[in-house]
Amino acid sequence: MLLHNPIWVLCESFEQQKAKQHNEWNIYKPLIALVFQDVHVMIFIGFGFLMTFLKRYGFSSVGLNLLLAAFALQWGLIMQGLWHLEDGKIKVSIFKMINADFSTATVLISFGAVLGKTSPVQLLIMTILEITIFGINEHLVAEILGANDVGASMIIHAFGAYFGLAVARMLYRPALRNSHENDGSVYHSDLFAMIGTVFLWMFWPSFNSAIAESGTDQLMAVTNTYFSLAACVLSAYAVSSLVEHKGKLDMVHIQNATLAGGVAVGTCADMDIGPFGAMIIGFVAGIISTLGFKFLTPILASNLGIQDTCGVHNLHGMPGILGGIAGIVAVALGKKNGSAAMQGAALASSLGFALVGGTITGLIMKLPFWGQPPDQNCFDDSIYWEVII
Amino acid sequence: MLLHNPIWVLCESFEQQKAKQHNEWNIYKPLIALVFQDVHVMIFIGFGFLMTFLKRYGFSSVGLNLLLAAFALQWGLIMQGLWHLEDGKIKVSIFKMINADFSTATVLISFGAVLGKTSPVQLLIMTILEITIFGINEHLVAEILGANDVGASMIIHAFGAYFGLAVARMLYRPALRNSHENDGSVYHSDLFAMIGTVFLWMFWPSFNSAIAESGTDQLMAVTNTYFSLAACVLSAYAVSSLVEHKGKLDMVHIQNATLAGGVAVGTCADMDIGPFGAMIIGFVAGIISTLGFKFLTPILASNLGIQDTCGVHNLHGMPGILGGIAGIVAVALGKKNGSAAMQGAALASSLGFALVGGTITGLIMKLPFWGQPPDQNCFDDSIYWEVII
Amino acid sequence: MLLHNPIWVLCESFEQQKAKQHNEWNIYKPLIALVFQDVHVMIFIGFGFLMTFLKRYGFSSVGLNLLLAAFALQWGLIMQGLWHLEDGKIKVSIFKMINADFSTATVLISFGAVLGKTSPVQLLIMTILEITIFGINEHLVAEILGANDVGASMIIHAFGAYFGLAVARMLYRPALRNSHENDGSVYHSDLFAMIGTVFLWMFWPSFNSAIAESGTDQLMAVTNTYFSLAACVLSAYAVSSLVEHKGKLDMVHIQNATLAGGVAVGTCADMDIGPFGAMIIGFVAGIISTLGFKFLTPILASNLGIQDTCGVHNLHGMPGILGGIAGIVAVALGKKNGSAAMQGAALASSLGFALVGGTITGLIMKLPFWGQPPDQNCFDDSIYWEVII
Repeated sequence: MLLHNPIWVLCESFEQQKAKQHNEWNIYKPLIALVFQDVHVMIFIGFGFLMTFLKRYGFSSVGLNLLLAAFALQWGLIMQGLWHLEDGKIKVSIFKMINADFSTATVLISFGAVLGKTSPVQLLIMTILEITIFGINEHLVAEILGANDVGASMIIHAFGAYFGLAVARMLYRPALRNSHENDGSVYHSDLFAMIGTVFLWMFWPSFNSAIAESGTDQLMAVTNTYFSLAACVLSAYAVSSLVEHKGKLDMVHIQNATLAGGVAVGTCADMDIGPFGAMIIGFVAGIISTLGFKFLTPILASNLGIQDTCGVHNLHGMPGILGGIAGIVAVALGKKNGSAAMQGAALASSLGFALVGGTITGLIMKLPFWGQPPDQNCFDDSIYWEVII
Repeated sequence: MLLHNPIWVLCESFEQQKAKQHNEWNIYKPLIALVFQDVHVMIFIGFGFLMTFLKRYGFSSVGLNLLLAAFALQWGLIMQGLWHLEDGKIKVSIFKMINADFSTATVLISFGAVLGKTSPVQLLIMTILEITIFGINEHLVAEILGANDVGASMIIHAFGAYFGLAVARMLYRPALRNSHENDGSVYHSDLFAMIGTVFLWMFWPSFNSAIAESGTDQLMAVTNTYFSLAACVLSAYAVSSLVEHKGKLDMVHIQNATLAGGVAVGTCADMDIGPFGAMIIGFVAGIISTLGFKFLTPILASNLGIQDTCGVHNLHGMPGILGGIAGIVAVALGKKNGSAAMQGAALASSLGFALVGGTITGLIMKLPFWGQPPDQNCFDDSIYWEVII
Repeated sequence: MLLHNPIWVLCESFEQQKAKQHNEWNIYKPLIALVFQDVHVMIFIGFGFLMTFLKRYGFSSVGLNLLLAAFALQWGLIMQGLWHLEDGKIKVSIFKMINADFSTATVLISFGAVLGKTSPVQLLIMTILEITIFGINEHLVAEILGANDVGASMIIHAFGAYFGLAVARMLYRPALRNSHENDGSVYHSDLFAMIGTVFLWMFWPSFNSAIAESGTDQLMAVTNTYFSLAACVLSAYAVSSLVEHKGKLDMVHIQNATLAGGVAVGTCADMDIGPFGAMIIGFVAGIISTLGFKFLTPILASNLGIQDTCGVHNLHGMPGILGGIAGIVAVALGKKNGSAAMQGAALASSLGFALVGGTITGLIMKLPFWGQPPDQNCFDDSIYWEVII
């Protein structure tokens, strides 16, 4: 059994820093424990409750989120361990547990695209395939290309979104073109979703800094993300009010687009882009994301057959690409060691693996024996849960 | 006044380690602050919201949870201080505040068994008596028997559950044999309960590692609990789907049985059982707990007169005993210094004190002047709260 | 651009301690990161959900809270930076980010007083003015008077409350004298509010200890706040039950008065007042706060034209003054270096700036072109949000 008898190492990959930066090392260990808890909260509370906005799909949103994440982190640890065997064994550390949460995040992003239209078995199959493909792309981007992506704009957010969109395209349901009666929110379901939004917003600096290489890089990633998110809130509110009837705000925009700044600053989070640079990235991300929800999502659904339940294209897809491009520019400007070409290759690789992998995965999920719900039972907990009305 | 003029020591019981393990010591202090916050969140958000599943008893669940916990931690600090007087004074430290939260947990577990059927005054009496008896048993188990129970499967979970069940037996209400109209959930109350479930699930590794003796033990407890919980989720979902009509999931199982892995791995959490060992414990706990909710709870209510509102027997009782037995086996296999016989004695002592103490406490709570609610007002906030319908 | 090219310093103002207290320094950095996260949760989840108690104003409560806080922390960093320019630049650190959250807290307290009766534009104007005036008073209290106020009873809580009450007085609406149909809670909105209450309650020790000068002071502030809050819960429940019909509890009291102990112990949090002293302060605060909600708030509204939606006078105003007075007494008794006269001057300054600043701000907010909602649309999300009923 590969998992047996691991050596319990807190954070082995930073061991080397110990000699060099003795003082910093002393503070690093507790910080990684803190950061791990924050990422864990984002995965289980953040993603779980963000998806409870649907009026009759709250049990599945938070419940299947828990099931998929608990399964995904085990599978992610095994996949990761197979890439990095030590003495023929998989060793476990807090650092690897953070990476397992990261691979889990890709699955939960894709889950958002197909929310309400898939069975638990289909989702478990998607989890197995997506984490495997994620592992290949991550190895390529980080080890072969040597690209920077500390906050994972490319390898988690863009990858997860376009993977999910490709799956959604394969599972296209013509009968849902005219919107389903349960594909919407009620007052209290939107408040539950805000629990998810706010926890994601608060802890995103930990996400983007979790795998930074040094304490200094980590601190920079925290601060850049903090500024990007703050600026993003302002542009998301402004644009939501501008595009809506009578200057009103739309809860869908607030729940999602306020987070786009965290996605978009991911790749550059540990680069010396300055607070002003981070705020520009966040501000632009908030605009793009809100406009995407308003104008692009309906077009994708009606013209391209991509039915994106949570609008992951607007929260993770476009802001993820923006993050990748910002990373290319920042490296070209010398804000971090690296090659702009390799950054570009990393973005292309992430999109390519996502689209091809998602298409194949979607085809497999479409096989008729996985218990996919019929159209009229979409977005409804009662098909998979005992629900008392 | 005993409480006056304490010396503020962060973590005195670990002072001795300082000389030996200088490097580790430096990181220990912040970790204990982090762990304390996590345990605190479990007590106040976790337990509080877990019990909000009842449709008309949410105010009492989260509100009385706050009242009982705030009272219990003060009483717990005094009880604990009297066992460990220093220069005739009670000294306070973060470590003791964690222990106070631990003693509080026993009360909140018992609260779950009698939820909806007791007055606040009855619950305060239960708090005083239960924490006192907990203190005696804890002293016996830890100091006299020298048994291992780092995550407190025996002294908190099994103790709290069987104490509460004994109280529930004493307060048996024949009129509630045919279930009460308010003894159930509605859609949104189940979502509130999931807030509690998910915070308990995420922070349980901190609970099981909070009083570990060294940083290495603490890390092992974190990781073992993490694996046990992940495996437990899978078995709880699988069994819930197997035993329910048409393969559906039951929210009661998901809210509770997914946590049984945290309970069951408690005693062995700091032992070198390996991730595989931890996963087996969690997997079995998820099965036992779900089956208990489905089949055992109705039998306890109808045949033995034990009306267990939250099913604490399934979440804390049986998994706590499983944890105790796993501890006996692990010590017998040499996974930790100790005596299997003493582990067995600790389990027996915890169950004995719980059953006897709970029975006596239940008899006292049954006295007619504590304002116990009449049968028709059970599970209803409006008897103790100003409620606008 | 002032914000450009900052030097990223984790906690520069404590650098000096490094030489003196080498051992403590090593643990300080991670603690400040932990404390920052806790304060952040209080600002965004705590304040945001505490205000969701209104039946039709949940979107605005948590949504505008996010908007105002994201805006306020940026403005707060600039204001703070201008007071403390270094080489002509604004430098950013975790310590300054905590202070930015603190200045944000004053705005959110004032927001509570005018909740439901103001437009987003009015609130953004209030944010700009209040944070500017807060910066002046804070500079005066801390630098010129040299007063102690570690947990900010005076400069945040009393200041924010009386600022908001002065604004509310200026925006007095005679038509709302007989209460508005939406100015109240429903069952589930009260449960959402309890999420805010419990997170504030749990993390208040971090708030009061966040800017303590040393690790020892920080620990004392944590423990004093912990005891004050625990005692406050008991008196708030007791008094709520005493003053309500048939001994019932009122959810408004529980949501708010249980927190008054955190406010009132703020100024003395890092003083050697002992657990018993802290508990007395918290116990008294719980009594005053609950009585204020029951008896004083209606009088303020009907006789003085101060319509205080959330009752911030009871949670932040009176307990803040109590905290200031407790600080005068404690300094006079030698519990901390300082001058009782300067403590008194600090309290007077905070109240004076609040009342004058709030009055002027309220007059500016009253100008007719900020989109203030008409009386019949108060306390109703649908004027600013797309709401599906």
